Amino acid sequence: MNSNEINIAIVGSTGAAGGTALELLLDRNHPADKIVPMASERSAGRKLQYGDVELTVVAAKEEAFDGIDVALFAAGGLVSRRLAHKAVERGVFVIDKGSIFRMDPTIPLVVPEVNGDDIEWHPGIVSTPNCTTTPLVMVLDALRQLSPVTAVTVATYQSVTGTGVAANEEMLEQSRTVLAGGEAEPDVYPHQIAFNVLPHVDDFLEDGYTKEEQKMLNESRKILHDDSLPVSATCVRVPVEISHSESVQIEFDSSVSVEDAKRVLAEYDGVIVVDDPTKNEYPMPLKAAGRDEVLVGRIRKDIAHENGIALWLACDNLRKGAALNALQIMDEALRRDAFKPAAQRSK
Amino acid sequence: MNSNEINIAIVGSTGAAGGTALELLLDRNHPADKIVPMASERSAGRKLQYGDVELTVVAAKEEAFDGIDVALFAAGGLVSRRLAHKAVERGVFVIDKGSIFRMDPTIPLVVPEVNGDDIEWHPGIVSTPNCTTTPLVMVLDALRQLSPVTAVTVATYQSVTGTGVAANEEMLEQSRTVLAGGEAEPDVYPHQIAFNVLPHVDDFLEDGYTKEEQKMLNESRKILHDDSLPVSATCVRVPVEISHSESVQIEFDSSVSVEDAKRVLAEYDGVIVVDDPTKNEYPMPLKAAGRDEVLVGRIRKDIAHENGIALWLACDNLRKGAALNALQIMDEALRRDAFKPAAQRSK
Repeated sequence: MNSNEINIAIVGSTGAAGGTALELLLDRNHPADKIVPMASERSAGRKLQYGDVELTVVAAKEEAFDGIDVALFAAGGLVSRRLAHKAVERGVFVIDKGSIFRMDPTIPLVVPEVNGDDIEWHPGIVSTPNCTTTPLVMVLDALRQLSPVTAVTVATYQSVTGTGVAANEEMLEQSRTVLAGGEAEPDVYPHQIAFNVLPHVDDFLEDGYTKEEQKMLNESRKILHDDSLPVSATCVRVPVEISHSESVQIEFDSSVSVEDAKRVLAEYDGVIVVDDPTKNEYPMPLKAAGRDEVLVGRIRKDIAHENGIALWLACDNLRKGAALNALQIMDEALRRDAFKPAAQRSK
Repeated sequence: MNSNEINIAIVGSTGAAGGTALELLLDRNHPADKIVPMASERSAGRKLQYGDVELTVVAAKEEAFDGIDVALFAAGGLVSRRLAHKAVERGVFVIDKGSIFRMDPTIPLVVPEVNGDDIEWHPGIVSTPNCTTTPLVMVLDALRQLSPVTAVTVATYQSVTGTGVAANEEMLEQSRTVLAGGEAEPDVYPHQIAFNVLPHVDDFLEDGYTKEEQKMLNESRKILHDDSLPVSATCVRVPVEISHSESVQIEFDSSVSVEDAKRVLAEYDGVIVVDDPTKNEYPMPLKAAGRDEVLVGRIRKDIAHENGIALWLACDNLRKGAALNALQIMDEALRRDAFKPAAQRSK
């Protein structure tokens, strides 16, 4: 079947990840038959520029999914909970960006480069991981070709667009206020984020970890099909607009050389090694923003663990961390004939 | 002897750490007999306000140290190399903030709470550690009371004043430019620091680590008297004005409970536990800036290592990370009668 026969809905098209999904479809000149931006009732009727044409935002409700083949849900957990299954009942293939279906054992959680095969057992919904998990599992999947991974320690440097458009505006506004000598007012975050860092992403759990940190553990295990992999994360918000960075220490069952690590990372789809300290070249959020690939650098022996490798990565949280991965799942599902578009269903 | 008999020189008084040293002397109402701010020839004659009085900056050269009892060197490695030994020859007790003497086996490297005893074998100079090492060794020293520390993994979030006044101005200026829609020009740093993070602090070494990361390893070993302790660090610059933060994973010889870890940290001199996630209370640079203590929170089991504890700390890099530690070394040396002030030398 042809991907130009399909109709795509973007639910949450006025948000950060939804907006990026539209951008990506346009950039890629995606041959969809129709693209339907959806959002809340409040935003319905709003016009969104899509290349030369204007798209009209449609209220996301059950009936709106008639005739839609694929819906990317990027409007938060409540909307997904309310509408995703309803859309599936109407024959829509749902790709959910949020967290609510990720750990559901009946729903695959997919990064196509890592576990594209899992798309094939989808029940109408495929989930896409948290924006910090996606680049991490790609790096782990590349490296485990050399030796089984036995433990992962990670500290994140997460941008504010991971929270959303309002958080980004809050950071910029607070920055202006502080630069003008004023007092910043926190609203989206519990504390000032401008010129500050917050070791607090998502809610706290009983064991002292946050939900975000727990996601990195549980989602990595599910995607890598490795239920015993220990991943200890500290998730931190930093005053950066786009792209998450991660400092990662990976322990292996047996010794792994820096050269081999660089080689398998460079060969891995969707990963680019940026690692030339003599030229001050290493991954940075500003360099990763607007790019599709995960940038990996600072690759070196972890001197604290016998069979360890330390590295640093940066990845556009709105692209590979969210919208791009979702669109790649759609393309991969089409390629594998893993869902039936409406045009074929009616035949 | 009385500390009000002593004459104190601050070499590098117009820089970030030197300025903080003056502030701290004033805040503490330090009973020095005389305070002499020193700086380069270029800054000589400049007036610095010190409470109600005006101090005149003196050019830092050999003769200027006559009559000085204690000199805090915070003007960079070249100045220390040129003048520190000359000052010692004139009977001055030198406390050096820079890195050049830190690993010299004949010179103690001291955080008074951890290894105050080492002051006693000084040869005229005592060195104070790198601003990321100081809070780390305090936390490690507190925790090793529970069980020997076997490995440490750390990722830092370092403020720009760690580089100096010019770096801070660069970050603020770049922020203004970016907020106005312009292109930021890097100068002090190789890349834009505003709204970005750089996994690059100090120069790169052959093994892929930076000098800053190597300092955290070597200095921790020297201060803790533990030559085999592995400390694997990733040092990262973040767009924050003051205070360094660190995500730390500590492995122990035997199991350590979160409760015990909190208790020994809370009891440790110079450490405050700030750890109430239910109230969004945790260490942050903005909270640590202007404070003397190391703030420690997010204390929890490290789920990736059997006997591990994960935690998060923030510490004012200009205070405990630099000037405060130096002044505490001075006070401790006086208390221990570890140097002879000029007034006594002439008797």
